[in-house]
Amino acid sequence: MNDERSCPDSDQTLVECSIEATLGVIGDRWTLLILRDIFRGVRRFSALHNDLGIARNLLAERLNKLVENGVVAKEAYQARPLRHEYRLTPKGADLSMALIALMGWGDRWYATSGAPTVLVHQDCGTPLNQTVECPLCELVVQPGRIRSRPGPGRNTL
Amino acid sequence: MNDERSCPDSDQTLVECSIEATLGVIGDRWTLLILRDIFRGVRRFSALHNDLGIARNLLAERLNKLVENGVVAKEAYQARPLRHEYRLTPKGADLSMALIALMGWGDRWYATSGAPTVLVHQDCGTPLNQTVECPLCELVVQPGRIRSRPGPGRNTL
Repeated sequence: MNDERSCPDSDQTLVECSIEATLGVIGDRWTLLILRDIFRGVRRFSALHNDLGIARNLLAERLNKLVENGVVAKEAYQARPLRHEYRLTPKGADLSMALIALMGWGDRWYATSGAPTVLVHQDCGTPLNQTVECPLCELVVQPGRIRSRPGPGRNTL
Repeated sequence: MNDERSCPDSDQTLVECSIEATLGVIGDRWTLLILRDIFRGVRRFSALHNDLGIARNLLAERLNKLVENGVVAKEAYQARPLRHEYRLTPKGADLSMALIALMGWGDRWYATSGAPTVLVHQDCGTPLNQTVECPLCELVVQPGRIRSRPGPGRNTL
């Protein structure tokens, strides 16, 4: 990931970097921990509150932002009394690659006794690998062989 | 990524989740933007300050934390006057998978005119794919086919 160009200032109205666009939505420790819990099936306000030990007003604020940004949807699971839970939208579910990457880094650098959680293939139970691949060469590409170039959306995001 | 177990409270001394361990080090919007810049070759304090528009005291505080955590190393590049730059350690370079994942999500959901930056294979120039694969089945595994199970480090991280 070497790039001669510098990314634009964060105070520009137009964000020209997809990492920055992403962090505008989920670039917060609590938000990422909330998403982790929802991925694991912890979907109700009280359960999230208990599991995370986050103040209720902060939890409500982060959840509302996730709903506003279309990452999570608030759905009724009971009518009387009315109760809601939070579920990932397709946009939210698409964050799995990022959460898997963050987990993998923690496993490699902080889990000295082995990974606390292992992601496996549902069909065969084998632990999974996250990789970057070249579809032409059909090779796993190591970080040192990755380069970046301006894409079609340069200056237009 | 479905797991029946809930993750431990964030106020426990022992963190049993590698996502939480990761966010303890880089779970901050500025920190991730600083790392993005260093990946791109923006390595000097003044260059980071100019590029990000971040206050100098906040930049110094975030960089010091990255140095303390072994993610970034401060190295002299000039003796008279003494000048330093910040370089990724192997631990920091290993964050590339996470930054690539965050960029990919932003590309898919916010880059309506195409990606601002495209990551390509240095050897052939082909745009790269980030995937999760099963080494046994030799298949790309979609998120819906990923399950989690307790690993060897459960309760010990």
